[in-house]
This record gives sequence, C-alpha cells and structure tokens, in this order.
Amino acid sequence: MLSIRPANLRDVVVLNTLIHEMADYERLPAATTVEMLARDGFGPQPQFNALMAYWDGQPAGYAFFYYSYSTFRGPGLFLEDLFVRAQFRGKKIGDSLFLRVAAIARAKHCFGVMLNVLDWNRPALVFFQKHNVRFLDGWKTACLDGEALQAIAQVE
Amino acid sequence: MLSIRPANLRDVVVLNTLIHEMADYERLPAATTVEMLARDGFGPQPQFNALMAYWDGQPAGYAFFYYSYSTFRGPGLFLEDLFVRAQFRGKKIGDSLFLRVAAIARAKHCFGVMLNVLDWNRPALVFFQKHNVRFLDGWKTACLDGEALQAIAQVE
Repeated sequence: MLSIRPANLRDVVVLNTLIHEMADYERLPAATTVEMLARDGFGPQPQFNALMAYWDGQPAGYAFFYYSYSTFRGPGLFLEDLFVRAQFRGKKIGDSLFLRVAAIARAKHCFGVMLNVLDWNRPALVFFQKHNVRFLDGWKTACLDGEALQAIAQVE
Repeated sequence: MLSIRPANLRDVVVLNTLIHEMADYERLPAATTVEMLARDGFGPQPQFNALMAYWDGQPAGYAFFYYSYSTFRGPGLFLEDLFVRAQFRGKKIGDSLFLRVAAIARAKHCFGVMLNVLDWNRPALVFFQKHNVRFLDGWKTACLDGEALQAIAQVE
C-alpha cells in the first residue's frame, strides 16, 4: 500500500540514495550529500521541500521542490525532481506524488507547477503530457556557472 | 552616475512600475502589484530579492531573483528579470546589475545563476552570450497551470 508524506530529517539518508538513483537514470552526476540535505532542507530556513513515497514500508520514490516567484504570475512551485524506483513502477506512485505536489501548489496559492524535462526522456514527457502540462517552447534555459561565473563575479 | 543597491520596502512602487515596463517589452502581462511585492518580498520570509539601479538618482533598471535548489548542483540563484529602461541603455547598467547578481550567487555559495530567455529576444541572447552563459538546449521547460492544475489538484 502507498503512503506519501513530507520528508523529515530522518529521511535524508533514504532521500539522498533516491536522488542519486534518479541522477543515474538521467545520466547526470548528483551533488547532494546527506549532510547537505540535512543542512539545506531541514534547518531554520529550508531551501527545498520533499515528499517521500513508501510502498508497503519500502522507499519507492520522492518529489523534490522549492518555491519560485514569477513577476508575470506571482508565487510558484518549481518541481525539481519526481522519481519512482524501477521496481515500484506501474503502481501510479508517480501520479500520486505529482497530484500531491499540485495540491500543495494550490494550497500555497501558487500559479502553477514549473518543471524542466530532458528532451530524450520519453517516459517523463509522456507522463507530464498525460497530466496536461504546457511546454513553454519559446523559452531557452541558460546558466552562468563554472569559470564564466568566477570571471564575472571577480570583477565586483 | 550609477548606484545599485538591494531593494527595500520604499522601492516597491518604482519596482512595480519597472516590472510592468519589462513585461510590456516582453509582450506578456505582469501579475505583480505594489501590495504583492510588499507582502512577498519584504515580509518575515521574503520569497524574492531585487536590486535597484539608479542613474543620477533616476530609476534606471532592476534585477529580480530568488534562490533555487538543484539536486545535481546544490543551492542556486534563479534570475527572473534583468531590465534596463530604454532611455538608460548604453551605460553598461545591465552589465553592472548582472555582475552584482553573480557576486551575490558566489557569496551565497550558489553553483550558478539560472535564467530563462525568450527565443525571439535577440538583445537578451546577445547580452547573456557575451557573459558566457551556457544554453541548456537539452531541457524543455513546462508548466502545470490553469484548468490542468485545478483538475489534478482537485482529485486530492
């Protein structure tokens, strides 16, 4: 049976394991550590929120999000990760997690749930299309990081 | 002469005016009001930050950002808006604002500055390319909002 609840400090070891499984699936390295998650998610000013999904008491998946703010739309929710372990798929756990995130967004008066999807991740694209997300094709996502960030930040 | 400083509660009327000028330029309606900005940016738990740029005491532009969190990279900064009024362009005010945002990202131990650009906004693309941002072309941005959000959130 499925149980979904907000993550607490005792979940950080499991959450970190799941995040790294998600990163393996997305073929990207994850930066998180148990210490980072504890410090950044469960201190006096949490920088993110997470929902844990358990199936018959076994960790099955998670949703990871934070609050954003659009000058066009007002307060929003950014869904960073939504993940269900391979052995727990086909039980609508992803649907239930996404539904809970949407309910939180509504309860917090957010205009919507924003998210990024890797363009080769067909199952994710199909999943979000099923839930009628809109793809914002006119927007390009960019990042100032690495040496470019150091170069510009040092001028200051 | 240019002066850049963090926005405070006394700036919200000017900030709101500039946000609506930015939205006109981007051909999108802005949702913000003076009351929203005061409540969401300058209460006990600010949901965004802003920098104000003044040129010879005249409001010339702003940067609007919030903190994000990547499971791949850790704490980040999301630059929602960077805007300079038409009559103040050509004075490197945009460069100075972006540089300040980058310095804040570094000081706050963020992995980088994330941003979205409209694909038809050639001056913005050129500006960010000049500062060596990386365009993350493999990512699609999507949003669950409107009736789709209501439909899914009501199931809960």
